[in-house]
Amino acid sequence: MKCLEKGLVAWLTGLPGSGKTTIAGRVAERLRAEGYRVELIDGDWARKTVSVGSGFTREERMNHLRRIAWITRLLARNGVVVLASFVSPYRDARKMIREIVEEEALFLEVYVKASLETVIRRDPKGLYKKALAGEIKHMTGIDDPYESPENPWLVIDTDKASVEESVNLLYSRLKTILNELPVVCEG
Amino acid sequence: MKCLEKGLVAWLTGLPGSGKTTIAGRVAERLRAEGYRVELIDGDWARKTVSVGSGFTREERMNHLRRIAWITRLLARNGVVVLASFVSPYRDARKMIREIVEEEALFLEVYVKASLETVIRRDPKGLYKKALAGEIKHMTGIDDPYESPENPWLVIDTDKASVEESVNLLYSRLKTILNELPVVCEG
Repeated sequence: MKCLEKGLVAWLTGLPGSGKTTIAGRVAERLRAEGYRVELIDGDWARKTVSVGSGFTREERMNHLRRIAWITRLLARNGVVVLASFVSPYRDARKMIREIVEEEALFLEVYVKASLETVIRRDPKGLYKKALAGEIKHMTGIDDPYESPENPWLVIDTDKASVEESVNLLYSRLKTILNELPVVCEG
Repeated sequence: MKCLEKGLVAWLTGLPGSGKTTIAGRVAERLRAEGYRVELIDGDWARKTVSVGSGFTREERMNHLRRIAWITRLLARNGVVVLASFVSPYRDARKMIREIVEEEALFLEVYVKASLETVIRRDPKGLYKKALAGEIKHMTGIDDPYESPENPWLVIDTDKASVEESVNLLYSRLKTILNELPVVCEG
């Protein structure tokens, strides 16, 4: 196991169905196999554990994302490579998250880009179908805005890149950073 | 730095003013000086970071403590020695916390015991004064119950023990456990 002095937070933002968690999951596997401590956290996990009872008003979403930011910060400052996969559609929320994390660790914003057409076609959780039928509200991309990152560290365009290519891209970009981080010990 | 394969969670429960955070803070300092990765989390911290907007109804308290349990679990499974200092007055809440943490890490319940007389005399945050004047409600020990642990791993009676003695007791008991935990590497 590689014991890093500090880890980092790679924050994947993008529309539901853009491929964030799929990509993060495969990258996490590879990094773990190399001995890094890695945590992948995403919205589905959070809603069952640290954000039970948290609703979807603007205030509740901000509290939810502030919480996640703090959790990733705590992990990263203890040497964990954190892959956080959250729609996180608002620029000001992502700014808040960055400010929290950057006080103690590296924050890398990864924009997982996909057209609305693509994510509606994929619709892995059937949410777009429901939103288009008016059965659910505040669906990002339908009746709630997605504010795309203005200056992300990395853009992964999953309209064009395959899963394999997307994973390779994030993995290799992360590795160039990870290789520069101080390693406390390796055992 | 000592890099543990897994850390543990020492959960300090007791009345407000019993000395939980004071003791945990001093123990954390000592363990850090020895190279352990240590996190001390308590209610004051949580309310400003991961539990902003979380109220004090029974349901909100349970969601809050479930969240804290998950955070300590995440940290402990990544090699962190976690000292969690929370009043956590209900037995069923502490049972829930234990069940969450024990799926992946050692959970040690520490009962920081003090009489109501003592904590009212200390009243470090002036909360008892307010509660006794009827200015705040649901104050543990006054108009909300504290259900003492039935079978804690350790009892620290701060009516009798000084801060120094209390710190020594928790530190030495923790060390006997920590010395048995697998160390991945030391650097």
